[in-house]
Amino acid sequence: MEHQESLTAYIAAFVSELVQTGITDVVVSPGSRSTPMAMVMAEHPDLTLHIHVDERSAAFFALGIAKASKRPVAILCTSGTAAANYYPAIVEAHYSRVPLLVLTADRPHELREVGAPQAIDQIHLYGNHVKWFAEMALPEKNNDIIRYARTVCARAAALASQSPSGPVHLNFPFREPLIPIMDENLFQTEERPNGYVKVHNGDLTINSYQFRDIAAKLSRKEKGIIICGNLETEGFADAVTILASVLNFPIIADPLSQLRSGKHSSENIIEAYDTFLRNEDAKSFLKPDVVIRFGAMPVSKALTIFLKENHSAEQYVIDSGGGWRDPAALSTDMIFCNETFFCKSLISYIKPKAPTGSLEKWRNINTLTKEHMKIINDSTELSESRLFYQLADMLPEGATLFVGNSMPIRDLDSFFLNNEKSIKVMANRGANGIDGTVSTALGAALYSKPLYLVLGDLTFFHDLNGLIAAKLYNIDIHIIVINNNGGGIFSFLPQAEHAKKFELLFGTPLNIEFEHAVRMFNGNYMNIKDWDQFGSVMKVSLETPGLNVREISTNRDRNTLEHREFWRSVSWEISNFVKGERK
Amino acid sequence: MEHQESLTAYIAAFVSELVQTGITDVVVSPGSRSTPMAMVMAEHPDLTLHIHVDERSAAFFALGIAKASKRPVAILCTSGTAAANYYPAIVEAHYSRVPLLVLTADRPHELREVGAPQAIDQIHLYGNHVKWFAEMALPEKNNDIIRYARTVCARAAALASQSPSGPVHLNFPFREPLIPIMDENLFQTEERPNGYVKVHNGDLTINSYQFRDIAAKLSRKEKGIIICGNLETEGFADAVTILASVLNFPIIADPLSQLRSGKHSSENIIEAYDTFLRNEDAKSFLKPDVVIRFGAMPVSKALTIFLKENHSAEQYVIDSGGGWRDPAALSTDMIFCNETFFCKSLISYIKPKAPTGSLEKWRNINTLTKEHMKIINDSTELSESRLFYQLADMLPEGATLFVGNSMPIRDLDSFFLNNEKSIKVMANRGANGIDGTVSTALGAALYSKPLYLVLGDLTFFHDLNGLIAAKLYNIDIHIIVINNNGGGIFSFLPQAEHAKKFELLFGTPLNIEFEHAVRMFNGNYMNIKDWDQFGSVMKVSLETPGLNVREISTNRDRNTLEHREFWRSVSWEISNFVKGERK
Repeated sequence: MEHQESLTAYIAAFVSELVQTGITDVVVSPGSRSTPMAMVMAEHPDLTLHIHVDERSAAFFALGIAKASKRPVAILCTSGTAAANYYPAIVEAHYSRVPLLVLTADRPHELREVGAPQAIDQIHLYGNHVKWFAEMALPEKNNDIIRYARTVCARAAALASQSPSGPVHLNFPFREPLIPIMDENLFQTEERPNGYVKVHNGDLTINSYQFRDIAAKLSRKEKGIIICGNLETEGFADAVTILASVLNFPIIADPLSQLRSGKHSSENIIEAYDTFLRNEDAKSFLKPDVVIRFGAMPVSKALTIFLKENHSAEQYVIDSGGGWRDPAALSTDMIFCNETFFCKSLISYIKPKAPTGSLEKWRNINTLTKEHMKIINDSTELSESRLFYQLADMLPEGATLFVGNSMPIRDLDSFFLNNEKSIKVMANRGANGIDGTVSTALGAALYSKPLYLVLGDLTFFHDLNGLIAAKLYNIDIHIIVINNNGGGIFSFLPQAEHAKKFELLFGTPLNIEFEHAVRMFNGNYMNIKDWDQFGSVMKVSLETPGLNVREISTNRDRNTLEHREFWRSVSWEISNFVKGERK
Repeated sequence: MEHQESLTAYIAAFVSELVQTGITDVVVSPGSRSTPMAMVMAEHPDLTLHIHVDERSAAFFALGIAKASKRPVAILCTSGTAAANYYPAIVEAHYSRVPLLVLTADRPHELREVGAPQAIDQIHLYGNHVKWFAEMALPEKNNDIIRYARTVCARAAALASQSPSGPVHLNFPFREPLIPIMDENLFQTEERPNGYVKVHNGDLTINSYQFRDIAAKLSRKEKGIIICGNLETEGFADAVTILASVLNFPIIADPLSQLRSGKHSSENIIEAYDTFLRNEDAKSFLKPDVVIRFGAMPVSKALTIFLKENHSAEQYVIDSGGGWRDPAALSTDMIFCNETFFCKSLISYIKPKAPTGSLEKWRNINTLTKEHMKIINDSTELSESRLFYQLADMLPEGATLFVGNSMPIRDLDSFFLNNEKSIKVMANRGANGIDGTVSTALGAALYSKPLYLVLGDLTFFHDLNGLIAAKLYNIDIHIIVINNNGGGIFSFLPQAEHAKKFELLFGTPLNIEFEHAVRMFNGNYMNIKDWDQFGSVMKVSLETPGLNVREISTNRDRNTLEHREFWRSVSWEISNFVKGERK
């Protein structure tokens, strides 16, 4: 009884504090060792518990909730391989800077490494991929240990949120019996009832001397560009667009910069670069002398090559998370500062100058490219490029677009153009895996509605289990599966020409009829036959609640040809234009 | 070109050596960074490549192949979260002592921790759960580095096999271009063409002084018992049954000891202990003074409690892997010695004695229990206990029975009795997870035919994706899904009485119709209605190739009641018997 009292008081203190930190969602995978934590959590009126049997999907589901709600999400599982199943989502959370509080139940010390069932070494289970690991004390009821449980909780949640956000892992040893004593006053605490310790996380900012120095350097540059990758900093869209207009710099906007859609000024926003930076004439025409880069490295390989070719340009990398996002080692200045603060502050140090014509060049080539991009709509057959080209038009105002990795994010980058809708674009771009995509999108769909997920067949297959959440929780989601029966991206890589066993090793057709899976999870399924049908389906999509899966079948070989033909044709126009300009 | 020559020579040397170590199977998950390794492996005539898109299932599939073939299996994936998906199977391989050679492709050093795509920290990615981690050198063609690649390969494969077997992780940094040069003489090596270095793994053995000492101690004991858990040592069944008959000790045989089925003597093999050791009269009647224990801790909780209650009995734990398998801290002697060698050698040091009657007691109670166990067949409705009770009869000679964790392995322990068929019993009992079971069984089914997998609905659901291997490779497997719509084991735990939200947190009904999934993977599906139908299906099972899924629906509440009623009724008979004996 004393054991159960200690267990209950300790866990109740932890869970009370969890709620005080602002956490509202917990994803729980059923298990025995985690019983007391799950039972106590289920009693708290301010926690929403999502039960998910498959821990891999569960952790990605939590990742999605955290991404959309911008709050840390706790995940709880039992001891053993259950915890190992969290690993892919934890790695993704680490690199995509998403706050997760990972709570694993464990056998107590005397049952470790002695052949006890379901006992594995959970100390530092996730290695370098969590911001903090703590092996928790055994439950005790005395004030010191209760205070300890509360402060560790507050600290862990705050650390998960602190920039760069990420996962934190707490491992709880629990002894049997695992049943807490349920009491009406479970969460009543006499000491500091409104939370034990509130953590005030700070932002990185640089000082006025540093700003003056940067402004002075920039004033000597005439052909600057701003590059924005995946970024979530509040107020950034307005701040960076104003900075760009003061500097007369174009903004190269990755689809995950959240700059291609929205009510901010799109005047200087360049979005067709993945197409025109494949052209040598355009690249020599547009050489920058300084690059200001925000957020993660953009998706576009053409842009990366362009930057490498211009390695003598100064490159300022601004990162509120103090990371080192510079895969090509091009940075001349690493600026660890909140991005919105940086833009807003820098403006006051900049002396306005007359435009040098560089911005106009970028805008003109961008406009020309977009003009010729319209030929994509000529394709009457279902095609991957046209799908992404039309998407902005077809999505309802306020939609969230979640995009799968591999080809979809690249096609989005190439073909999803500036629009004035408020469309939020999401993807798992920490480690760029194809795993857990369905679950992440479903988690996000709880807070971002309506949500549209566009992904390839292998990515859909990889996390089919994730659909169970849609069934159990009646989550509204619109999934568009681009089924090219295998790994489409490999057709664009050198092995497409060199590998004797290409289909075996890389094409990997699964020949699956996904309709079966969708039916199993009580979803609506439709095989899209043509563009008209797709248009009508998208139009009424807001009226179809629940799980909706629309499958679009394409052909990998034809898709590669179409892309190449498009780039060839546009490239020809761009070269003509540049030659005309130079005369 | 020089880069590609180095890449090719280095990888070809590694792959040649891989084949020389005796590895025949590689499970490859498609990806870009792993391209050169996959392409070279695909060229080797002596390697069988299994392609598996989902890395979690892929690693479990490899685990199954390794378990059944008793050879290390290599797994290969690309960089990023792909590698993190291997974690659950690696943890299971570590604790269940199965040799795996984990090969992960990685970005080269200059692309690590700088925000490059699909680059995560793969150094020591699996922490303490691999026997060895090596960060491989970058590919070079000179003799030193080629020799290095070959010796690391030989060493890694040998270490994976060396007792206790387990996973070894090699991380390969590869630079672009990732295309090797395919040459007809790819694997031709001038230096040591039959393998660079052959590793002769030794066995742990104790010496004659140690044996004499143990034999002397044993000679003073009158009520000894032998306990055999999960064990795979060659020749063990015959050796331990002979030892038991010399010592006049009963053998308590876990279903995974491989002693309940087979042609060896079953005279002293006690298998109904999970039932009769729940009875206090039987337990006080059977108190041992010495315990000789082989293999992993048995499944039975009743047995564990019995051993704890007899903590003053000497306990000898024999482990060829030199582990510390003693969760209740009962061992008086840890003997690190090959189990078969131990049994065979010890016999020559034992002086035969007249039986003391203890063995008879165990045999009589075992016989009595089995006699009363027949009432299980009275249940006309589909029931979980009757399923396992009938299984030995229904399985064909030479079958492999793969059993899911949670309830199925416990029911197997309770109800699967001695038989003279050659039935091999397998399960994932390293960490006892419900994950990866379908894939492990499918991998095993490549080498152990015919294979029957019996598992619960949550376990089946957890690894539904694994069924893709059955579809792509036309693997013959008979799957019996016990669908009690949720987590049946929790009904036996204290929370069944205490948790207000039991169904939400523990019952977790998924309400899934698995028929859809089976159809998606081109399998044959049947919903079993009654015992007659099940009997006929099992009879003709050898004539139904491919993926066969038979679903048996049961009810969790009724199942718990049935079990409790059975134990109560048998317990009454046992008490009567013991009281009669004592008069």
